[in-house]
Amino acid sequence: MYRDIEDLGTADNYLDEIREMTNDIQLFDTFSITEIELLCRHMQCYGAPRNYPLIAEGQDINYLLLILTGWAEIKQAVPGSRMAQLSEVVAGTTIGEMSLIDGQPDSSSCITSVPTDFAVLTKDGLNKILLQSPRLANKLLLALLRKMTRRLREMDQSYRPLSLH
Amino acid sequence: MYRDIEDLGTADNYLDEIREMTNDIQLFDTFSITEIELLCRHMQCYGAPRNYPLIAEGQDINYLLLILTGWAEIKQAVPGSRMAQLSEVVAGTTIGEMSLIDGQPDSSSCITSVPTDFAVLTKDGLNKILLQSPRLANKLLLALLRKMTRRLREMDQSYRPLSLH
Repeated sequence: MYRDIEDLGTADNYLDEIREMTNDIQLFDTFSITEIELLCRHMQCYGAPRNYPLIAEGQDINYLLLILTGWAEIKQAVPGSRMAQLSEVVAGTTIGEMSLIDGQPDSSSCITSVPTDFAVLTKDGLNKILLQSPRLANKLLLALLRKMTRRLREMDQSYRPLSLH
Repeated sequence: MYRDIEDLGTADNYLDEIREMTNDIQLFDTFSITEIELLCRHMQCYGAPRNYPLIAEGQDINYLLLILTGWAEIKQAVPGSRMAQLSEVVAGTTIGEMSLIDGQPDSSSCITSVPTDFAVLTKDGLNKILLQSPRLANKLLLALLRKMTRRLREMDQSYRPLSLH
């Protein structure tokens, strides 16, 4: 995983920077500083150059990424066309939650727009937190559920049936 | 909540019946019998007649329902039309997960097709499990995350852009 880019060590080396941006990290909404520090010990940081694929469509991943600096674009292949740009992910955003949970390939790509630092929580990391710190795991899983609920409601709103009866 | 229908007591009164149907209850996929029993102590059971609204569209609910017997239909209001029937929920299915997590009204109705028994896990119940049994709570939250991930992947597949570029 990410062997061709700079390994920056575990995220607890960057606690000061992460503390400064906690208001921008929805995942940490209900976390205390101590809980953020504990979680960060289980996350590995990397520095990617511009145009680097953090996630490639269809790639087997089972980890979550938290963008710390820079930004990236979510893109999806469209049959007979170029890549569709779906959205932009900025510092504080997490991606890959679904693959962390079900281990299935992601259905879109995520490509850095500028040099970007990010932290990774793997399935192994999550399993360690579940085993060693079940109450921290409660908060983390609830945060992921809140994010997925928001996305489901947005999608439900966008695709509500208009002419069925 | 459900004051006009029959209150059947807590779900641990029906453990034998619930054990017999655990293969049909995805929520309990990774649960041991002891864990199912513990969870059932926090769930209240009700018996509803035919055509009873288990959930009314737009209604403030903050609980999850598990269908134990019978079945129900998920319906949604369509402007200028009759109700759209979206899907059928059978014994073993859970509904209302999103409202349990975010406390927001449901965007569809769920109406019994036949006399139906169901169990309810409220937000208060979930909070008690989080407080008293954090490891059980993690199994429950992971089961909800797996269900939401499945739904997000299905919706993503259904509404994948075909002509964007």
